[in-house]
Amino acid sequence: MATRREVAELAGVSEATVSRVMNGVGPIKEETRRKVAAAADRLGYQLNALASGFAKGRSGNIGVVLPHVPKVRLFSTYYFSEILSGIGDVLHQAGYGLLLLYRNPQARYDYVSLYRTRRVDACLILGASDLPEEAASVFALADEGLPCCVVDQRYARPGLPCVGADHRAGAYAAARYMLDAGHRRIGFLNGSPHYSNSADRYEGYRQALAETGLSPDPAIQFEGNYSRKSGQEAAGAIFDRLEALDGLLCANDRMAIGAIQGLRERGVAVPERLPVIGYDNSDASSLTDPPLTTVEVPFYEMGRLAAESVMARLSGESGGSSGVEVAEGAAAYHANGSKPAAEDILLPTQLIIRRSC
Amino acid sequence: MATRREVAELAGVSEATVSRVMNGVGPIKEETRRKVAAAADRLGYQLNALASGFAKGRSGNIGVVLPHVPKVRLFSTYYFSEILSGIGDVLHQAGYGLLLLYRNPQARYDYVSLYRTRRVDACLILGASDLPEEAASVFALADEGLPCCVVDQRYARPGLPCVGADHRAGAYAAARYMLDAGHRRIGFLNGSPHYSNSADRYEGYRQALAETGLSPDPAIQFEGNYSRKSGQEAAGAIFDRLEALDGLLCANDRMAIGAIQGLRERGVAVPERLPVIGYDNSDASSLTDPPLTTVEVPFYEMGRLAAESVMARLSGESGGSSGVEVAEGAAAYHANGSKPAAEDILLPTQLIIRRSC
Repeated sequence: MATRREVAELAGVSEATVSRVMNGVGPIKEETRRKVAAAADRLGYQLNALASGFAKGRSGNIGVVLPHVPKVRLFSTYYFSEILSGIGDVLHQAGYGLLLLYRNPQARYDYVSLYRTRRVDACLILGASDLPEEAASVFALADEGLPCCVVDQRYARPGLPCVGADHRAGAYAAARYMLDAGHRRIGFLNGSPHYSNSADRYEGYRQALAETGLSPDPAIQFEGNYSRKSGQEAAGAIFDRLEALDGLLCANDRMAIGAIQGLRERGVAVPERLPVIGYDNSDASSLTDPPLTTVEVPFYEMGRLAAESVMARLSGESGGSSGVEVAEGAAAYHANGSKPAAEDILLPTQLIIRRSC
Repeated sequence: MATRREVAELAGVSEATVSRVMNGVGPIKEETRRKVAAAADRLGYQLNALASGFAKGRSGNIGVVLPHVPKVRLFSTYYFSEILSGIGDVLHQAGYGLLLLYRNPQARYDYVSLYRTRRVDACLILGASDLPEEAASVFALADEGLPCCVVDQRYARPGLPCVGADHRAGAYAAARYMLDAGHRRIGFLNGSPHYSNSADRYEGYRQALAETGLSPDPAIQFEGNYSRKSGQEAAGAIFDRLEALDGLLCANDRMAIGAIQGLRERGVAVPERLPVIGYDNSDASSLTDPPLTTVEVPFYEMGRLAAESVMARLSGESGGSSGVEVAEGAAAYHANGSKPAAEDILLPTQLIIRRSC
């Protein structure tokens, strides 16, 4: 049987182009497609992904692992949608398949088997946390040296790359903005501290308060699960503490929108009685009444960089141009206070000022 | 080597449960997981997805084919997000992988090769149209008798099942509501007529007008591509025809939101000067100012049914309980005027009244 290289040579294209044509993926010019098809025909070459994957030990698929949360439509959340779009665009260009896998957050997940059974060549892990079972599953990957990247969760573990955002700086900017406007009793509706991104936001909030000689008041710390519903439910507890509050930070826009809705139902006007700042700069943040002051996070770019990181690893170019470029930008950024592991990339965040605060 | 059946018998569970445990997917009780792992250990059974797939001719993956539109983040659109969530939940339960594949809408797509090369066991096709190259790609599947389902696009071709929604009835209800409120010069901002769902909406609109002795005025028919930006761009043409208009239907909420935004920039108040009705009942529709009157479409359910249809086909139960139940409900519904192929399922739509009309 002819090889991919022979087909590429006869057609005058790259081997990657041959793969894309044969797998029917990627933006391919009709003329290129015809040249490759003609060369493959002439050489009797037929790509059998499974057979060829078996031979070379590769599936051509990248696993994207999502937490499975019953009754929550992950694709409908801005967070996962943007990250998946960034991942999807990179894999599409590279001719890889994107295999979506769901993980039960309570159970130990056998990532290593996914590679052993050759269902995936690399894994991108979304929505992971510090919970022991979950961390242990992920650490096993690093211990085996398998290509992977954790998205928006820092483990600070050698051999386990992470692409996230500087949520410490993001929450710091939001709290600083409220403090500069004269607010002093700023509550925080955060997500579970098991996520490093929640913990980082808390740290930025704490740091801004500390610079003003304040410290977080435990009575005005609230917790949700990043859903709109949990924000609406938290509105009850926030309302009970209203006298102790003159501002509220929320760890994402969905919780902010839910909280504002719940507060409005209790007769509390935002921003007149209680200024609120969201987080994410999601599509919804500019559509709500009032439009949300929020923190922009480049989630699409986060997905792109995570996918590029495993692509570089798979093509044996982890020290190549693309990887180095990213690492240098990130290293410069890291100088700014946080202490991620060498492999970690933290993207910058930006305060977006609208009318909710 | 031991078989999956032997492991299942020793562990006292179903073969499907063994697969879910060995593939690390699905919600599995810890106790069950341990029993299966112990039985597999004892029998020396190790699932190698690629090898076992090669032997039985199955990959364990279902292909979900999306159109690739450069610079459009498909995951961020309510339409694709909801359908994918429905598909994902069913495949997760069944222990199948969801392999996302992108299709270039301009090129012929070789679906049949996807099966021949065993990358997928079945295909779900989203965002397909009547364009000749695209239809020819899809028809080849039906001709080969391969398991597949087309989502929200009717081809009325034997052997090619489709799960969609009754957009004729949805657009009819929206136009009827405007007519009942006394509006007579109702414009329509539709998507490309190459999609059967656009054509069905137009037909519902036409039918409602006809019942009132009116017919669609070509001067107030507008076309977008279902993006918010295209709605905003269409606002120019709509503004130019404002004297000929006393109402506007839009084929989705995103175009409606863009059009309202573009009209507002030109000093046209919605609904005071021009009432507008959207379509989809997306998350955004209740957040905008004014909240959109719109048509609810059960996209999540659409994804579920499409996935269940190929699951039933793969387990050889296409005449089984689940399939028949669905088909009967659909058949009853079909009695209501539209004429889909026998395999087509059209879900009901519902008018949601808010403040934009």
